[in-house]
Amino acid sequence: MNIATHSATPSLNTLAAPLVDALVADAELLRLKVFEGPRGVRIVDAGIEATGSVEAGLAVARICMAGLGRISLRHETAAFWPSWIDVSSSQPVLACLASQYAGWSLSASKEETGGKKFFALGSGPARALAGKEALFEELGYRDRAGSGCLVLEVDRPPPEVIVDKLLRDCGLAPAQLTLVLTPTRSLAGTTQIVARVLETALHKAHELKFPLAQIAEGAASAPLPPPAADGLEAMGRTNDAILYGGRVHLTVDADDDAAKALAQALPSCNAKEHGKGFAEVFAAAGFDFYKIDGALFAPAEAWVSSLQSGRTHHAGRLEPALLRRAWMAES
Amino acid sequence: MNIATHSATPSLNTLAAPLVDALVADAELLRLKVFEGPRGVRIVDAGIEATGSVEAGLAVARICMAGLGRISLRHETAAFWPSWIDVSSSQPVLACLASQYAGWSLSASKEETGGKKFFALGSGPARALAGKEALFEELGYRDRAGSGCLVLEVDRPPPEVIVDKLLRDCGLAPAQLTLVLTPTRSLAGTTQIVARVLETALHKAHELKFPLAQIAEGAASAPLPPPAADGLEAMGRTNDAILYGGRVHLTVDADDDAAKALAQALPSCNAKEHGKGFAEVFAAAGFDFYKIDGALFAPAEAWVSSLQSGRTHHAGRLEPALLRRAWMAES
Amino acid sequence: MNIATHSATPSLNTLAAPLVDALVADAELLRLKVFEGPRGVRIVDAGIEATGSVEAGLAVARICMAGLGRISLRHETAAFWPSWIDVSSSQPVLACLASQYAGWSLSASKEETGGKKFFALGSGPARALAGKEALFEELGYRDRAGSGCLVLEVDRPPPEVIVDKLLRDCGLAPAQLTLVLTPTRSLAGTTQIVARVLETALHKAHELKFPLAQIAEGAASAPLPPPAADGLEAMGRTNDAILYGGRVHLTVDADDDAAKALAQALPSCNAKEHGKGFAEVFAAAGFDFYKIDGALFAPAEAWVSSLQSGRTHHAGRLEPALLRRAWMAES
Repeated sequence: MNIATHSATPSLNTLAAPLVDALVADAELLRLKVFEGPRGVRIVDAGIEATGSVEAGLAVARICMAGLGRISLRHETAAFWPSWIDVSSSQPVLACLASQYAGWSLSASKEETGGKKFFALGSGPARALAGKEALFEELGYRDRAGSGCLVLEVDRPPPEVIVDKLLRDCGLAPAQLTLVLTPTRSLAGTTQIVARVLETALHKAHELKFPLAQIAEGAASAPLPPPAADGLEAMGRTNDAILYGGRVHLTVDADDDAAKALAQALPSCNAKEHGKGFAEVFAAAGFDFYKIDGALFAPAEAWVSSLQSGRTHHAGRLEPALLRRAWMAES
Repeated sequence: MNIATHSATPSLNTLAAPLVDALVADAELLRLKVFEGPRGVRIVDAGIEATGSVEAGLAVARICMAGLGRISLRHETAAFWPSWIDVSSSQPVLACLASQYAGWSLSASKEETGGKKFFALGSGPARALAGKEALFEELGYRDRAGSGCLVLEVDRPPPEVIVDKLLRDCGLAPAQLTLVLTPTRSLAGTTQIVARVLETALHKAHELKFPLAQIAEGAASAPLPPPAADGLEAMGRTNDAILYGGRVHLTVDADDDAAKALAQALPSCNAKEHGKGFAEVFAAAGFDFYKIDGALFAPAEAWVSSLQSGRTHHAGRLEPALLRRAWMAES
Repeated sequence: MNIATHSATPSLNTLAAPLVDALVADAELLRLKVFEGPRGVRIVDAGIEATGSVEAGLAVARICMAGLGRISLRHETAAFWPSWIDVSSSQPVLACLASQYAGWSLSASKEETGGKKFFALGSGPARALAGKEALFEELGYRDRAGSGCLVLEVDRPPPEVIVDKLLRDCGLAPAQLTLVLTPTRSLAGTTQIVARVLETALHKAHELKFPLAQIAEGAASAPLPPPAADGLEAMGRTNDAILYGGRVHLTVDADDDAAKALAQALPSCNAKEHGKGFAEVFAAAGFDFYKIDGALFAPAEAWVSSLQSGRTHHAGRLEPALLRRAWMAES
């Protein structure tokens, strides 16, 4: 069996376009603000001046996956937390890595912006128009479309110099580009990050050099906390939701040994920092991501099913006590 | 952050209109009967002559929330009951209080009807056209639309005198008004009442004088029982589903003290009658709602997240043993 | 109350038609192959040459239920397995028995095919066009429509002689017929079989001679395993998912005695072979279905609610240990 996701030729941005239009049409109900940004590109503020919402975060997450993921909010009576996000995709590589992954590094110096320096990691389908990341060669995928959408976890709109770069790299006219801004410390921002639980697993599998074309199916779940009150804690808790509350189920076209190795290497418990809240880990690393063991960036628990043997391998476990301690008020 | 739901200006009845049309179009599959009532208004019988269905109840519940709530039927393997209803909204105040709440008191004497006296509490978006309740001033919301829909938990169609009042108060012509009739003792009636689990929490928060504009997000869940065999028991068990099986998660733009106070005051366990089945409580109160402690009308369990602190407060608990005793046959 | 599903007159194939068209339109993303088969009928390969997908399996299951079932993939944190399929219907008899049940026996000898003999059990709405099964007289339902769709769990397309029979029995021209092929040993095949958990309960109720017109509502759930590596094991594990992991909740217009009798007789634990994996049972029966106790073909656990008493009866239980032993790799 050959999964061959890389031979699929849908246009991710074309698939996302109706979802982007619906986001804009529902802006008021989703508590979003839509305005013209630099050069006339369309900007959707999902949590800066606008309040945003969980529903907006779900919609942004669906755009991030280019419509190739099922994303829903679920209650669970018997679990340690009431609100959960479920994500699944039968095109997990395209949805998560060619689209949802926040892999496009965008920076501008003070000189370039004429003001404050700017940095953001772009996610969403427009990445596949630009194809600036080495990942796209591995994926063998490149999009062509009459519109594009990029999601940025930022606290202010990108400066003109960044917008110019985006338009140039994506090959779009200003009227064809939509930028969605979701600060980590917002309802929509928190929601769309937790909805990356499946993507985090795909990214970790890629880091482990597991052949992406062998990943046929993905489903995952993670608890949805409210946004944290400050930026560091917001980053901490969205990571914690996945690192300590995330569970993934991958189905791979690989033999038992490979599936077992993936299951065992995948969960966050493989990192030496495992067991500490992410904000604490980040602070201890001097606020330098690159000093943190990359193995930490993964769901807490992995189930990997081999299509060749039909058997399922399991490793890792959720850490309810850690999450409740971090998220609940002391009583 | 200002939630400012009251400044939103969507038309609730316009949002509900396509859902009402779909309900009518699917009448046969949903086991509904649609006919012309007094003055020619459209009446949807969802459980009087018609059998109705759970699916119809879900559709009615979505209409009640004017399309601003996600409502689904969910199975849970590890829970004490198999079938659950999940409700969530990023516009909980508009969806639940301006629309879903059964707050419009409609009564007619024998003299007025020329037959039996009539009483019903109207719910759904047409309430916001009439705006006869004091609540609408607090909400600062009033709808204008070319159609309206009202849901009535009744065993017979409303008399002409009531229909005339509805048309007058809503400012609608007969062809513009749809009335959906859902007896408590029906599949659709039971379903659409249990789907009020989030609304019950919003109403309780309002009773507690929690500022509605500070409620940003709401999600809730409750077990779905079958309808009971008689009217009193039917009312009892739909209340029990929420009072002893309902769980709500609110996200509020308030500080920790306010969020904690809300969480602690919200659950039904604050009422002195807590622990007894609602039918028994109602009988003990001489079948007089106003002699029951108002604190009882709330979900069993509350989670309240503060957007200002990022922390979550919790109080109350489900009562599986009580529900199983009430709903299961003795074995 | 009279459920009277048999008096409903929707056209199952007309209801399914847009779902079939969507399946074909999304073929690439769902990893399907669509081609012209014998006589020019449309064939959707969902797992023979094509890889197929879980998402395709869900789409096929929705077609099998003629759009009258809600089918979704759900995660459950507190359960023994991560991925579950939920199915519900307010028209369970039409959806499951008139459409989804694999009841149309189709066989052709070597002489007829001019090659290998062919055998398949057809499922899906086209069965109701042909009405070749005695069941349709009991249901009092027969469809007329301008298109039809049949699902076959086969490893190769049907021969011309079978296609001719289908066209003749369904009264369709070749361009009006779509055949969906889902081998048991495929992602889509496994998924659409597990999604038969509610149908299995309906079929068992029918075997028990429970009056079908009294079944008002059905909801069910079962764990979704990956496909097994070989055909016998694939058949075994899809059966095991239902027999040992399936749970059903039926609501019936019957009295307590009848509801209790149905609940007690329904679960798979009534069969003497209960407790052994289905592949083992099948082998012990000399690979002859008819030597297996028919009582085994049912969900593991049944909840039956009586509309006449309002009480719910329960019997059976899931067997997590058996399923984990069968599905998980030894650690």
